[in-house]
Amino acid sequence: MATQPVTTRIVLASRPTGKPVAANFRLEQETVRDIGEGEVLLQILYLSLDPYMRGRMDDAKSYAKSVEIDGVMEGGTVARVVGSRNAAFKPGDIVLSHSGWQSYAISDGSALRKLDPDAAPITTALGILGMTGFTAYAGLRNIGKPKAGETLVVAAASGAVGSAVGQIARIFGARVVGIAGGAEKCDYASREFGFDAVIDHRSSDFASRLEAACPNGIDVYFENVGGHVWNAVFPLLNDFARVPVCGLIAHYNEEPSISEGHNQLPTVMRGILRRSLTIRGFIQREFVDQRPDFYREAAQWIAEGRLKYREDIVDGLENAPEAFMGLLEGKNFGKLIVRIAQ
Amino acid sequence: MATQPVTTRIVLASRPTGKPVAANFRLEQETVRDIGEGEVLLQILYLSLDPYMRGRMDDAKSYAKSVEIDGVMEGGTVARVVGSRNAAFKPGDIVLSHSGWQSYAISDGSALRKLDPDAAPITTALGILGMTGFTAYAGLRNIGKPKAGETLVVAAASGAVGSAVGQIARIFGARVVGIAGGAEKCDYASREFGFDAVIDHRSSDFASRLEAACPNGIDVYFENVGGHVWNAVFPLLNDFARVPVCGLIAHYNEEPSISEGHNQLPTVMRGILRRSLTIRGFIQREFVDQRPDFYREAAQWIAEGRLKYREDIVDGLENAPEAFMGLLEGKNFGKLIVRIAQ
Repeated sequence: MATQPVTTRIVLASRPTGKPVAANFRLEQETVRDIGEGEVLLQILYLSLDPYMRGRMDDAKSYAKSVEIDGVMEGGTVARVVGSRNAAFKPGDIVLSHSGWQSYAISDGSALRKLDPDAAPITTALGILGMTGFTAYAGLRNIGKPKAGETLVVAAASGAVGSAVGQIARIFGARVVGIAGGAEKCDYASREFGFDAVIDHRSSDFASRLEAACPNGIDVYFENVGGHVWNAVFPLLNDFARVPVCGLIAHYNEEPSISEGHNQLPTVMRGILRRSLTIRGFIQREFVDQRPDFYREAAQWIAEGRLKYREDIVDGLENAPEAFMGLLEGKNFGKLIVRIAQ
Repeated sequence: MATQPVTTRIVLASRPTGKPVAANFRLEQETVRDIGEGEVLLQILYLSLDPYMRGRMDDAKSYAKSVEIDGVMEGGTVARVVGSRNAAFKPGDIVLSHSGWQSYAISDGSALRKLDPDAAPITTALGILGMTGFTAYAGLRNIGKPKAGETLVVAAASGAVGSAVGQIARIFGARVVGIAGGAEKCDYASREFGFDAVIDHRSSDFASRLEAACPNGIDVYFENVGGHVWNAVFPLLNDFARVPVCGLIAHYNEEPSISEGHNQLPTVMRGILRRSLTIRGFIQREFVDQRPDFYREAAQWIAEGRLKYREDIVDGLENAPEAFMGLLEGKNFGKLIVRIAQ
């Protein structure tokens, strides 16, 4: 075998308090060991950066284990097989893996899915045709259940999950009101994704503009933000409204101020009772049986031009921490992906 | 026709701030008018008093209209037909009606359900075989969905809804931990309803005792209380736990203190997300199609001695306000019913 490659990896150096900072990450290098029988050596081409990773940096009870201190940061990846002692894979194969923030990884093959580069750009396996798109689909199909003519509101409407939620909800027949931060993202979401209205949550009259955009109230609120967006949405939820809770990006970098002041819980619980609301947290993994339906339907919608997506590609693994910190502040524009190798 | 009877009724004199007081109610008397074609004259025998009535005294957005100022207080009743110009009813018939806090009422017959006094005590139509029992059944069947071996927690476990919830959950195969206020109610719930454990929420170490009683966490929490019981339950909810929200009696008489201090909402929303929790408000009316199933199953369970109930009967309509104020403080012991006439 040729000289073993050196892997570059980014590990969790320390747990953040509030917003992550550069010192929470550390870049390391190590020569990759020889692969054993049944194993494959992967060269990582693309790494997906997603808000959920902020939760993995905490040491809290969650649906998934925390990243250990000094452990490689977790993440979905697209990789090329560059060495194989596993009959199912040969060098040159492109696979979806969950190899984390590093440039090479060894796998026993069990969690790999082969991708067909001719069927779709391989980065889409990290976004619209991957976890991102399926999160939108699963949350709508199983919890949000928008009906024709109902009003659905989704925040981060120009983002990876939000733009898929809004477009799929429109395909299901709902009227879609998006929320985004800043005029550029609002204009883009309105023009590119065809939402019925898009409201800027940074505008001073955000709550009243949202109310005006939802004259019949809100039947589904796809929650991926929390914070002041929730506060504006909550009074507008109709009887029997459904709230799939997919993310709370405004809370991930929680600063003390978010838990100060008035205790909102009694008001929210009374609203849940009086308006027969459903609030339901979920992760896409729970609905794994529906993935084949999703791949089939989403590919069709993309082919028809009804489901569009935007990617925001950053070059170089060493830039992943900064890109991730920017993601948590809404600085990306589209599905954030790091290109590690060509 | 004989001399027209005089009806006594209790109206909403003013809206309460926090706990209702005697001055929020006013007793009035009026001679009943003649009934018209198609109408029936009802003499009210029993009035059900329920926590939801506190919500009707407020002028807030809810699933049901508020009682108007000077309007008769709302409530479910069992009545005897004493005059009829409606072919479907004859004097002497016993009916379930929603006539409110008064001694006589006129109905067009459309919302009446005839009761068979030989099949079950007629008061059960206001409790275990009425809205109370069906609320427990509908919340469990549609939202709580306890599976065999799961742990269900219910508060007000000696009360009308709570005792039915716990017993039906046991019939469904769940392990049931009840919560009640004071040693007498705890002993009773344990002895009479056969719950696996009953914890006194007034004990100083309530939260740690609840945790000890739920070594495998909580899979279903039937919420009818809120406040400090919720605070003890929330950390124990397992991944995919379900919380049917049926009532919030601790909040109905909300005092300013309940919304003071730490804002709990961000913590609760994060818990919903991280543990894929379902929080779902409901009223039994939504599941009206399941009532025939319920009547059949509940009658069977009662006959088999697997579903027991306790009634707390107060004499005299004039005592309804005091009994209702006591209900909101947990002073009743069993389904609270006012006997208005024999």
